[in-house]
Amino acid sequence: MKTINLDYLSANPLLPEVQEAMIKAIRTNYGNPSSPHQLGDQAHEALEQARESVARLIHCPKPQEIVFTSGGTEAINTAIKGVALAQAKKGRHIVTSNIEHNAVLRSLRRLRMMDFQVTSVGVDEYGRVDPEEVARAIREDTILVTVMHSNNEIGTLQPIEEIARITREKKIPFHCDAVTSVGVIPVDVQKLGVDLLSFSANQFYGPSGVGGLYIRSGTVLWPLLDGGVQENNKRAGTENLIGIIGMGAAAEAAVRDMEDRIRHCRRLKERLIRGLKENIEDIFINGHPELSLPNLVSVSIRYIEGEGIVLMLDEENILVSTRSACAAGALQASHVLLAIGRDFADAQGTLVITFGRETSEADIDRFLEVLKKVVRTLRDMSPLYNKKK
Amino acid sequence: MKTINLDYLSANPLLPEVQEAMIKAIRTNYGNPSSPHQLGDQAHEALEQARESVARLIHCPKPQEIVFTSGGTEAINTAIKGVALAQAKKGRHIVTSNIEHNAVLRSLRRLRMMDFQVTSVGVDEYGRVDPEEVARAIREDTILVTVMHSNNEIGTLQPIEEIARITREKKIPFHCDAVTSVGVIPVDVQKLGVDLLSFSANQFYGPSGVGGLYIRSGTVLWPLLDGGVQENNKRAGTENLIGIIGMGAAAEAAVRDMEDRIRHCRRLKERLIRGLKENIEDIFINGHPELSLPNLVSVSIRYIEGEGIVLMLDEENILVSTRSACAAGALQASHVLLAIGRDFADAQGTLVITFGRETSEADIDRFLEVLKKVVRTLRDMSPLYNKKK
Repeated sequence: MKTINLDYLSANPLLPEVQEAMIKAIRTNYGNPSSPHQLGDQAHEALEQARESVARLIHCPKPQEIVFTSGGTEAINTAIKGVALAQAKKGRHIVTSNIEHNAVLRSLRRLRMMDFQVTSVGVDEYGRVDPEEVARAIREDTILVTVMHSNNEIGTLQPIEEIARITREKKIPFHCDAVTSVGVIPVDVQKLGVDLLSFSANQFYGPSGVGGLYIRSGTVLWPLLDGGVQENNKRAGTENLIGIIGMGAAAEAAVRDMEDRIRHCRRLKERLIRGLKENIEDIFINGHPELSLPNLVSVSIRYIEGEGIVLMLDEENILVSTRSACAAGALQASHVLLAIGRDFADAQGTLVITFGRETSEADIDRFLEVLKKVVRTLRDMSPLYNKKK
Repeated sequence: MKTINLDYLSANPLLPEVQEAMIKAIRTNYGNPSSPHQLGDQAHEALEQARESVARLIHCPKPQEIVFTSGGTEAINTAIKGVALAQAKKGRHIVTSNIEHNAVLRSLRRLRMMDFQVTSVGVDEYGRVDPEEVARAIREDTILVTVMHSNNEIGTLQPIEEIARITREKKIPFHCDAVTSVGVIPVDVQKLGVDLLSFSANQFYGPSGVGGLYIRSGTVLWPLLDGGVQENNKRAGTENLIGIIGMGAAAEAAVRDMEDRIRHCRRLKERLIRGLKENIEDIFINGHPELSLPNLVSVSIRYIEGEGIVLMLDEENILVSTRSACAAGALQASHVLLAIGRDFADAQGTLVITFGRETSEADIDRFLEVLKKVVRTLRDMSPLYNKKK
């Protein structure tokens, strides 16, 4: 039976043209972009071409403001720790939201171990941050604000432009974790007005382990990786050129196909949400009904456990996730779901369904059909459910 | 005319079998190793198989002691900053040598900006560290010793076992930057007795931008990348699986072919050094005559500039380097050459010639022939040389 992948968030399949670009790069056997001879020149050119493609994707006017990283996590760690450590003499206070990705949360936790202080603003029932709350949280000694562009568990978009207006007025660097947005929906660093923006190639059908950080000129931060003078002196280490070339190809395709992809995903999302509501009782659809990612649906299915659903669906060759793969090994309930008001039990019964260009309406229909059976089976075994009845 | 690559250090060409393994990985379109479903399982298996291959290469008994990184630079930064920050409450003093790679030097410089202190021990005329000097440099508050396995500019090997005996007795974590050794010559973490050891895939015909850090169980360090629970909670971020699979294939080939490769390189090295001495007057061969890498020759050619030689050789399709590609953008004279007693002028006239499995004796002969002409041309234009005459 055909495998239905509804866990695109964990790993987008590589686009055929990304595969071809990477295979061509492998066969070309590039040299080191830093070498002062012909092999170096050729590699350097390929590197800068990818940088231009990625810059276009986020409407970054100067490609040299893009630093390639080993993925979203490194970009986020670089932005947060880099600014904090470079600015520590000015102040040690950081403002964030309480629904950030683990890469943000744990970078901040690390900084707290180094005597930084963090204020985390809450969100409403849809997971939206109120820019006014960010403004109120800012202190004299605030040196960084970090809020995500879209949430990786519930898809809600944040009012980044409004927050940026506040941080620019107060001259505080603003980092935006846009890993789940870049390449999926339009992201324009100029319009947004952010100083730093993190992204990852795999969210737009590029390879895993490759990402980037936009650093607006003039933003002061320490590199996370010290060593050679690569990446404009902001990220040492010989580049993963094959992966970067793959990201460049993925960025070009994303620019070209974004509208079609969004239209396709919106149609699937509507069908999925309607089907969930029609087929299964006692559920919540999490996240904002309009201001959210087109390729993600989060559903809390009461009285049962998400882990059990994932395993039973897997046996039917349907792949979904309970939350981000990064957090799959962690056993606590999702801080995002708790933040929007779900209780512990409902948070445990949550599925994150993500899809993309290869997903068909038939895939959604089959998922709904199998899910209905699985939920019935699990609820029949659930003491909570039987008590409720 | 055939291009002769004598700059293997900057970028080893990918082995055909590494290319095939990576292309197969691209076409397989792996999922995320952290996903709790079949796509995740398959990816996880591929990841752990590569880890086992890499573990075998450095005689690491427990593959989980290997953490995959985005290259040697990240491994080195993780080891040095990770141990220093985790141990800062115990002490803030670090011992190193004065011929380390920039990734080590600049990580330490960063730590000095955070109130750590560094003692740097000198080397002899061959670039060898005296273990007794390391012992004398160690203080009550020393929390880390970091000394490289082999030098990337002159090839000299260090007495790592002897230094490790000292650090183990004093219970101080010992990091060894073995980037230019692993996969080139035998490296056995058990015999060496180090606690941390950094390496990079590209030094053994694997892809650039992929590396690893051996962390002996029980060694306490903070991850450089915080976020998800990947890599045994020691390095967050979705893995560059395609690159890691390439490193795994490269490690297997290195284990299998190491003896042959060393024999081949030694023959070339002897021929090259003999040719240099016979063909060009007023030169120094840098580094230890026996205790050094088989695939590297450093030669200081007096009265002329290395940069000029590189450019003129490049026009003849012969690729060499003046020093590591990582430092190519930096204009200072090599700290390594100054440390072994070369003066500024001689340091500037130095070539680093590195070679490997595809290099032939004919390549070496042609290089010698062209170099002789180039040196003559440049010396004819050199006021220093004419004055000397």
